Amino acid sequence: MSSEPLQPPPDRTVARPHVVILGGGFAGLHCARALRRAPVDVTLVDRRNYHLFQPLLYQVATASLSPADIASPIRSILKRVRNVQVWLGEAIGVDVENRVVELKDGRLEYDYLVVATGVTHAYFGHEEWAGRAPGLKTVDDALEIRRRFLLAFEAAEREADPASRRRLLTFVIVGAGPTGVELAGSMVEIARQSIPRDFRFIDTASARVILVEGADRVLPGYPPDLSASARRQLERLGVEVRTGAIVTDIGEGVHIGEEVIPAGNVYWAAGVAASPLAASLDAPLDRSGRVLVESDCSVPRHPEVFVLGDLAHIQQDGEPLPGVAQVAIQSGRHAGRMIRYDLARRPREPFRYRFWGNLATIGRAAAVADFGRVRFGGYLAWLVWVFVHILKLIGFRNRILVMIQWAWAWLTYQRGIRLITGSPEVQLERSRSSRDA
Amino acid sequence: MSSEPLQPPPDRTVARPHVVILGGGFAGLHCARALRRAPVDVTLVDRRNYHLFQPLLYQVATASLSPADIASPIRSILKRVRNVQVWLGEAIGVDVENRVVELKDGRLEYDYLVVATGVTHAYFGHEEWAGRAPGLKTVDDALEIRRRFLLAFEAAEREADPASRRRLLTFVIVGAGPTGVELAGSMVEIARQSIPRDFRFIDTASARVILVEGADRVLPGYPPDLSASARRQLERLGVEVRTGAIVTDIGEGVHIGEEVIPAGNVYWAAGVAASPLAASLDAPLDRSGRVLVESDCSVPRHPEVFVLGDLAHIQQDGEPLPGVAQVAIQSGRHAGRMIRYDLARRPREPFRYRFWGNLATIGRAAAVADFGRVRFGGYLAWLVWVFVHILKLIGFRNRILVMIQWAWAWLTYQRGIRLITGSPEVQLERSRSSRDA
Repeated sequence: MSSEPLQPPPDRTVARPHVVILGGGFAGLHCARALRRAPVDVTLVDRRNYHLFQPLLYQVATASLSPADIASPIRSILKRVRNVQVWLGEAIGVDVENRVVELKDGRLEYDYLVVATGVTHAYFGHEEWAGRAPGLKTVDDALEIRRRFLLAFEAAEREADPASRRRLLTFVIVGAGPTGVELAGSMVEIARQSIPRDFRFIDTASARVILVEGADRVLPGYPPDLSASARRQLERLGVEVRTGAIVTDIGEGVHIGEEVIPAGNVYWAAGVAASPLAASLDAPLDRSGRVLVESDCSVPRHPEVFVLGDLAHIQQDGEPLPGVAQVAIQSGRHAGRMIRYDLARRPREPFRYRFWGNLATIGRAAAVADFGRVRFGGYLAWLVWVFVHILKLIGFRNRILVMIQWAWAWLTYQRGIRLITGSPEVQLERSRSSRDA
Repeated sequence: MSSEPLQPPPDRTVARPHVVILGGGFAGLHCARALRRAPVDVTLVDRRNYHLFQPLLYQVATASLSPADIASPIRSILKRVRNVQVWLGEAIGVDVENRVVELKDGRLEYDYLVVATGVTHAYFGHEEWAGRAPGLKTVDDALEIRRRFLLAFEAAEREADPASRRRLLTFVIVGAGPTGVELAGSMVEIARQSIPRDFRFIDTASARVILVEGADRVLPGYPPDLSASARRQLERLGVEVRTGAIVTDIGEGVHIGEEVIPAGNVYWAAGVAASPLAASLDAPLDRSGRVLVESDCSVPRHPEVFVLGDLAHIQQDGEPLPGVAQVAIQSGRHAGRMIRYDLARRPREPFRYRFWGNLATIGRAAAVADFGRVRFGGYLAWLVWVFVHILKLIGFRNRILVMIQWAWAWLTYQRGIRLITGSPEVQLERSRSSRDA
């Protein structure tokens, strides 16, 4: 790449502070919106041209929704916020002393920097597992999981050897946080309800879906009674739940201590690591690489740099806040407000996360809801989950489409998006030959 | 790959003829359905697990529809046709003497063979153009075109040099058949109506969309008055139409004789070549590699082998039939019927294509319709086009979703699927650095 500055720089003839936001997720987007009427120029940089509604990403992985149903172009979302320009680009480092963001193909000077680039999956030092056990953070991850899941049934249908067939039809999900629970519930439903009649030789309902969790209960971030409820609901659907089980290796199968589960497909929903950008911020990090921020979400000694959302380790009442959408949204709004305070020469305030509630869905009519004192599971929790997620989706079009597809799936037990894209023939070979590997 | 037969062979204890169908497009699917009550076992082989409604594929390329809106799993479509089994696999050759299909990972014996593997794009001996000018035959092709088209605007927004910017915003479509016309119309609409307000620096409406055609008119397969109507409609939308223009090279730009159009993006809608499988059939081929079939669509000297759809060169009234969906559907039904005739010891009949009409859409409220004696263009043709395509889509769910998305696009002028998937950052670099290449 040439190093010449290709981009038109923001118009600095008027002396407006330049706010650079890295990441168009919940935190970045809400920060940009909070700056809508502030006397600043904002540049929002993202590697993708779209904002992704991450809480429903598992439904793309499990053939219920198309990527476009839960994604909207960042430009469209912000088109009426006239002081924001959107850049497709990737930040690779920050020079906090000189207030410059290094992009892969250029650089951006800033007066304020907001870093909200999120987290990616981490394999606890076993990066070699990445190819064998894909995680679920991006649209491409979701399509890869969908492809592998659907291919397993195709390969099994053509497989004569019973042991190989059983192996192909064994699915292990590592990690029983919300993502793991959602994946497991959806996958067992597909195998048992959506596709049995489509196959001639295999009984797809005999597929095993095993949810493995190192902690002693599923949904470890929820109150224990809801964990117990979630487990009951999962087992009723047909998921085999293994708690207190530490995965020691992933190869031909999943190793849990001495035991090996022969599984053709393993999915990773266990660990996250901070975006590598955090390391260049000259700030203290926690064990997962998240930035230990001040009470106002800024970086120590650099009040002009904010770190938000999943990338930030925010202490509140002695506990770090969880990596959920609400924390990202609220911290995004807070950072925007603090920049406005600065410009108005008003003292900053600490960020205070307001807990609205936690919801995790498990499957058809199964979910758990945690609203602090009020907690419940089952059908009602699921209805609340559906309502909240439709409401929170960005874009009227997406809401309508998701509602229709959910209604259709509810009535017919079918999944609409059962497409294996990419190179199925190659992958079929891979998934079949791997048994000899 | 191991060469052991992995697949369970069809149950040959009952002496039912085995029909192997290669390809799950219109022809293969309709042939399988026509054999529903026949005393045969059918194996349908396709590289993809889904049937694609090809006439709307350009809408995936131009950000109006998601792949899943126009695709359905072949298994689901045929799940009630109990004598059909569906195989994900790729045929690489046919041994017509021994009646065996060679798959990439196995082999299949047949009593009847139906080859309906279609066509792919061809670059008239310039295969090196493939990387520079992607064609539109598969879902992956469509996503690649969509990615390049959307990336061009993103790169232009960050491009300071006016000449490079102009080049990025120049789109050339080679070939003015239905696909080329549809792509050109949609692309100019996106640039002029959907996205202008999303960008801060560039005027997307200044983008040039140039449709290049070697023949002396657009839609050469249509009657001349409709070609003229299509051209008027295209030009009204803002497409630059260049007929009688032969592309001699594609590199930094598109070469038409001595003239070079500097264009960052070129799309190929000009030529097709038969699936390479045709060559292994021991049958006469035409110039594009299509099989010259007998009047009943079977291969000369091999009445047990049928070639259908786009892959077949079917003469009728001294003219080859066009590569359109109706020919594929009708020839598929015919082949199924002829197999039933054979089993009932009834003499075969020649295939007779019944012309229902031809429709090509150009853009919002613009289309041409050719129903033989009745021909018209404009709004009415567009309404007919919308109605017919909704009706012909496979699956109630797909119909509903496509209708909603079209209605939404009609009302808002927006395109719902403006996602750049894959690796945008890499591609952005590529599209920008190519100007120095």
